Amino acid sequence: MIQVIVHTGHDGAISKIPIEELSGVIHEQGTTVWVNVVNPTPEEVARVGEKFHFHPLALEDVQRPDQRPKIDPYDGYQFIIFYGMTSANGDAVAHQVAIFVGENYMVTFCDGKLGVVVETAERWRANVASMDNHGIGFLLYSLLDSLVDGYFPVLDDIAERAENLEEAIIVQGQPALQAQILELRRDLLMIRRVAGPERDVMNVLVRRDPPLFGSKEIIYFQDVYDHLLRITDTVDIYRDMLSSVLDANLSMISYTLNVVVKRLTSSSIILMSMGLIAGIYGMNFVYMPELEWRYGYPFALALMAVVAVNEFAVFRHIDWL
Amino acid sequence: MIQVIVHTGHDGAISKIPIEELSGVIHEQGTTVWVNVVNPTPEEVARVGEKFHFHPLALEDVQRPDQRPKIDPYDGYQFIIFYGMTSANGDAVAHQVAIFVGENYMVTFCDGKLGVVVETAERWRANVASMDNHGIGFLLYSLLDSLVDGYFPVLDDIAERAENLEEAIIVQGQPALQAQILELRRDLLMIRRVAGPERDVMNVLVRRDPPLFGSKEIIYFQDVYDHLLRITDTVDIYRDMLSSVLDANLSMISYTLNVVVKRLTSSSIILMSMGLIAGIYGMNFVYMPELEWRYGYPFALALMAVVAVNEFAVFRHIDWL
Amino acid sequence: MIQVIVHTGHDGAISKIPIEELSGVIHEQGTTVWVNVVNPTPEEVARVGEKFHFHPLALEDVQRPDQRPKIDPYDGYQFIIFYGMTSANGDAVAHQVAIFVGENYMVTFCDGKLGVVVETAERWRANVASMDNHGIGFLLYSLLDSLVDGYFPVLDDIAERAENLEEAIIVQGQPALQAQILELRRDLLMIRRVAGPERDVMNVLVRRDPPLFGSKEIIYFQDVYDHLLRITDTVDIYRDMLSSVLDANLSMISYTLNVVVKRLTSSSIILMSMGLIAGIYGMNFVYMPELEWRYGYPFALALMAVVAVNEFAVFRHIDWL
Amino acid sequence: MIQVIVHTGHDGAISKIPIEELSGVIHEQGTTVWVNVVNPTPEEVARVGEKFHFHPLALEDVQRPDQRPKIDPYDGYQFIIFYGMTSANGDAVAHQVAIFVGENYMVTFCDGKLGVVVETAERWRANVASMDNHGIGFLLYSLLDSLVDGYFPVLDDIAERAENLEEAIIVQGQPALQAQILELRRDLLMIRRVAGPERDVMNVLVRRDPPLFGSKEIIYFQDVYDHLLRITDTVDIYRDMLSSVLDANLSMISYTLNVVVKRLTSSSIILMSMGLIAGIYGMNFVYMPELEWRYGYPFALALMAVVAVNEFAVFRHIDWL
Amino acid sequence: MIQVIVHTGHDGAISKIPIEELSGVIHEQGTTVWVNVVNPTPEEVARVGEKFHFHPLALEDVQRPDQRPKIDPYDGYQFIIFYGMTSANGDAVAHQVAIFVGENYMVTFCDGKLGVVVETAERWRANVASMDNHGIGFLLYSLLDSLVDGYFPVLDDIAERAENLEEAIIVQGQPALQAQILELRRDLLMIRRVAGPERDVMNVLVRRDPPLFGSKEIIYFQDVYDHLLRITDTVDIYRDMLSSVLDANLSMISYTLNVVVKRLTSSSIILMSMGLIAGIYGMNFVYMPELEWRYGYPFALALMAVVAVNEFAVFRHIDWL
Repeated sequence: MIQVIVHTGHDGAISKIPIEELSGVIHEQGTTVWVNVVNPTPEEVARVGEKFHFHPLALEDVQRPDQRPKIDPYDGYQFIIFYGMTSANGDAVAHQVAIFVGENYMVTFCDGKLGVVVETAERWRANVASMDNHGIGFLLYSLLDSLVDGYFPVLDDIAERAENLEEAIIVQGQPALQAQILELRRDLLMIRRVAGPERDVMNVLVRRDPPLFGSKEIIYFQDVYDHLLRITDTVDIYRDMLSSVLDANLSMISYTLNVVVKRLTSSSIILMSMGLIAGIYGMNFVYMPELEWRYGYPFALALMAVVAVNEFAVFRHIDWL
Repeated sequence: MIQVIVHTGHDGAISKIPIEELSGVIHEQGTTVWVNVVNPTPEEVARVGEKFHFHPLALEDVQRPDQRPKIDPYDGYQFIIFYGMTSANGDAVAHQVAIFVGENYMVTFCDGKLGVVVETAERWRANVASMDNHGIGFLLYSLLDSLVDGYFPVLDDIAERAENLEEAIIVQGQPALQAQILELRRDLLMIRRVAGPERDVMNVLVRRDPPLFGSKEIIYFQDVYDHLLRITDTVDIYRDMLSSVLDANLSMISYTLNVVVKRLTSSSIILMSMGLIAGIYGMNFVYMPELEWRYGYPFALALMAVVAVNEFAVFRHIDWL
Repeated sequence: MIQVIVHTGHDGAISKIPIEELSGVIHEQGTTVWVNVVNPTPEEVARVGEKFHFHPLALEDVQRPDQRPKIDPYDGYQFIIFYGMTSANGDAVAHQVAIFVGENYMVTFCDGKLGVVVETAERWRANVASMDNHGIGFLLYSLLDSLVDGYFPVLDDIAERAENLEEAIIVQGQPALQAQILELRRDLLMIRRVAGPERDVMNVLVRRDPPLFGSKEIIYFQDVYDHLLRITDTVDIYRDMLSSVLDANLSMISYTLNVVVKRLTSSSIILMSMGLIAGIYGMNFVYMPELEWRYGYPFALALMAVVAVNEFAVFRHIDWL
Repeated sequence: MIQVIVHTGHDGAISKIPIEELSGVIHEQGTTVWVNVVNPTPEEVARVGEKFHFHPLALEDVQRPDQRPKIDPYDGYQFIIFYGMTSANGDAVAHQVAIFVGENYMVTFCDGKLGVVVETAERWRANVASMDNHGIGFLLYSLLDSLVDGYFPVLDDIAERAENLEEAIIVQGQPALQAQILELRRDLLMIRRVAGPERDVMNVLVRRDPPLFGSKEIIYFQDVYDHLLRITDTVDIYRDMLSSVLDANLSMISYTLNVVVKRLTSSSIILMSMGLIAGIYGMNFVYMPELEWRYGYPFALALMAVVAVNEFAVFRHIDWL
Repeated sequence: MIQVIVHTGHDGAISKIPIEELSGVIHEQGTTVWVNVVNPTPEEVARVGEKFHFHPLALEDVQRPDQRPKIDPYDGYQFIIFYGMTSANGDAVAHQVAIFVGENYMVTFCDGKLGVVVETAERWRANVASMDNHGIGFLLYSLLDSLVDGYFPVLDDIAERAENLEEAIIVQGQPALQAQILELRRDLLMIRRVAGPERDVMNVLVRRDPPLFGSKEIIYFQDVYDHLLRITDTVDIYRDMLSSVLDANLSMISYTLNVVVKRLTSSSIILMSMGLIAGIYGMNFVYMPELEWRYGYPFALALMAVVAVNEFAVFRHIDWL
């Protein structure tokens, strides 16, 4: 689905036009155009690419998923790969957004599941007339900022899962959670893998010499850059914490084993001691005076009890029971 | 709560004035102004921001907690995010301070729980008349220095907790301390996360070309920079020690298990050997000469004792008991 | 086997000629030559080297396997070591390709098992007449791109093996897989070792100042560079995941031990308790009233059952059975 | 204690003078002065600082222990923090030395326990007249070189302790050594923490542009720089080895546990098998033919022996005993 | 032992002369001199040093073993520390070589155990007359190349030991190999420690601006540089593999413990169950019908067998036996 939003500079009018009429307006003075292609089919990519004379390599990248975030300079426009993020059933998913930024136009290709691009386009359409800054740089900023802002709820979600896991692991030593830890770790790696190169993209937008945009826009890009720094910092901290938790978990399990082994083998030693006494009075010697005592049986039981209580006391004393 | 301290250059007078009267004095030659907003409400932020024409992005950052320490250059002023630290119940807490530094004014927004900002402002008010250096650079230094100096007691506190933990773990192998280790680690990560980017901020203040302040001030900023280096060094060392302690802890626990297993199963083997003898003399064979011996019973008991003592000696010899 | 493909600029004709006739055509205006030597023998290397006056050090490198990917500038040509990859029985194998790139010629030496070089040569021969770009830079790009594209199926293969392993380890804690993990890790290290320096090679092709090729070609090299970045990113993520899986595996095994120890020693304690009762009623005291009870025997069995059931309940309650 | 050594250039005379007379000689042409303050009191620091007009920030640093090694440029002099090292009871201790280096003077503040500073001063006093190089750069070199040379015996000491530990751990698996490992690790961290920034200090002395000293001196500073590189290399290697040793230790302990468990439970199984036979012949069935055999008892004992020997053989065969 | 080889440019004659006659020929046009001192005594070092006016610091370094590889620029010559390697009893040993390179001379000091230096000198003497390149740069290359080529057999040796260890550890879980692993690791660390700084030395030779040698020589140094890169890559990979192997080893040992514990305690539970039955029929109750059954005894044995077989089946089913 191709969506074309045109903001004409001379009268400030906003209009949605079919892609075919684009050629007529794009070269007018002060016009800004956002072409947004949702769930692009190969035909749509080819059609839009042809209209703007995009490089075949860039168009290839548009259609291949799982590209690395990057900014490639082409003749007359920049090609940017960026990612939006959604959280489905507590699992973070990254959606690739391909962006072409020219003098007075921006062309985006995005996944329909990533609502944020369409929302940003709608918001721009609604507000552009009343905004101070109609430039393409600010438009790009609006999009990137919306995309990056979408990472924070995903991170919060991860934070919650991490804390639950930590709680469960430290308090209960549950290993059934190993699969969940690995999943969490995979999500963190995924965000790291996306946010790291995106930081480099923003760095180019902020520091490229000569600058790609004016200094007024650069302040805004700097802001997105700061957010990405914060995101990568946070991800690194979660990864660090997670591996501490895993280490603690292993110590915990080993310690629990110690406790269990102490407790159970102490118990079995007590039982064996009592069993030994029973065994002794079960011997068939002809001359065993205790056997004929009137209170031999209670005496034997008492002996067992005394031994058991003593051993119990000793084990408790050395903290084994 | 908005606090406005004005130091007028021509007569050296210090005065506290309401924010409304600020416009009258700020453009006078030689005047230095510190506006400190404690626990800023959105309205106060807007009001102060309007007075100084601060950029909306910066004002947004003021109100969002958990920003990354940074220094952003704006037209006519620098915007700095820094952190103060307090220690509550042995748990380190970081408080964001937002600082705008212009030609002759400094505006700060801080949390009321962080007493150090108000204290620094009061100290400056009391002493500025008698100081050599009335410049805004020195004022900024005073604030940053006070903030960073506040990290050392927190670090000392962490050092003490780390040593106690190490003591407890190495000597006693207590795993109940795992939660405390993780908390300590989280505190260290938090300080690292704050002090690392702050180092970059100081680096900009010291080395930015062209310099933001005169060379006289830069010596002071260099001093704060050195303190931050020392803090990050220290944090890294504690983290390294902590992970060594965890490793040692795991070895310790495993070793203890070895000792316990040796000791308990040795004991059970002794008991089983004695039980076997009892079992043998409990057999019901018609022809068992020992059973009819006069001293068969004492003989059996003695046999048990001999076996037990021998096994004990062997186990002790090979260091298993 | 030496293969010589000549594309003469003036008439666009493509021809395969024997190496001896090369000298006649190579200096013609607009001619592009690709000499591809498959499974080079020392004699062939010497013969081709002599024809083009290649440096002895480079020719030595051609014949030594296991060179590090690199680009060395020589007088009048560049010498590149690159790698293609094939996957044999689920095991990744890297094949060295030596490339000399001059003004209007490219000479390649490759292993016959690496079909992709010959395929690329054939494709070029078939299509060059109809291509826009006849330059040597584009020819080099075609080759490097084909080589790097060959890494992705190998990576996919590794991904599948990694997931199977993870599944097997997390779900079943199988240690027999350790050998497979190590093999997977070795493959990942191998790809990392090849792709890392290749990235540096591409970086030289893209950023060397003065540039080695025109800006039109650089866009293409940038594309290969991006692919290599993606490959190294992916390899790093797999390595990270793999080590997480190993850690999880260790925790898993330790936890399983805990469970087993709890279960088995709990069982043995129940058995010992029952055995103790049997032992008691096996004692030979003259005065043991229970022995003469009419239902003494069932009573004893019932006692055993009661003890066993109680202990079972206790162990189940504390989650040890 | 303040020590003042003056070398007057015009007659080469060396003299020790009280600090009060310093002002008279310091501005003479060709004079070199070394003021060494041992165990500086606050009053002495203030007095010397005043004489040379040192910056208050630097003087503060002189009195604070535990500063990070650094070189700070001040107007007319350099301020250097460096460390000497001593080894007390096999425990490395670092002593801070504060150094001010001006045009023709060097002022040092040091701990009295660090004999090397006074020794270097005395050696300089004794030899300066006969030396080629009277410059302050060479004087600084003498001091830094002596300080750094003092690290090597400390490192040798650590090497010996590390080897003893490794021996003890690998051969004997002693965990009581954990405390010693941690101490060793702490010493290594301490040296790393001191030597790393000192390397940066030397780097400034060697490479600062414009250079702080002449090229003749720089060769000497380069030498100290090389020593520090060697020290940090060595420390890194010991740390790496130490962590390998710890890992090996853990494997060792786990393996020992395997051996112990195999051996002890094998033994208990043998005992239980024999006990079972005794138990069977202790049953009270009326019709048990073996019980009435003439050699039933020896038969039962022989049966036990056969079972025990067989089990022993099996366990030995599978390497469990 | 001092060896002096002189190649006089005007007649191409090669001669070995005593060190005393060196002064006569060294300043002749086109003469190249290699002075090689094997197992240098302090007197020889002093004598050669005096002849060439080497700096005392460099001469000190010549005599101190265990220097870090480096290249130090002195006035009129370069001073290089490099290492050769030999493999004694499967243990890698590094031998320091000190090299002075001037305009038309090279002076080397080496250990007699390192045959490669003398061999290179002899080869040069034999071939120099027929070589194209008589320059000192090419001479230095010949030496460094020979030294670095000597690392590869050592690495191959290490590779073989590593593979044997891996085989032994993965297949057999032998911990007696821990000492060998540590030794291997120490060898790898040693090579890393030598090859890393040597890479920096080669980097200086290749990239120093202004260049130390002509572009013809730089191609050769680049080759040595590539070899060192390959060596450090390889060492890093072995270290990585080794630590994977250690991790796998630990998992293996833990898993084996699981298996052993399951098997042995399963067995003991079976024995205890049988023993319980024996214990029951060993009780002395007056009314126990089974005791008087004609086939009570076989019944009891059969009962034991049934219980044992059932338990065995259960344990086998859950994979514990």
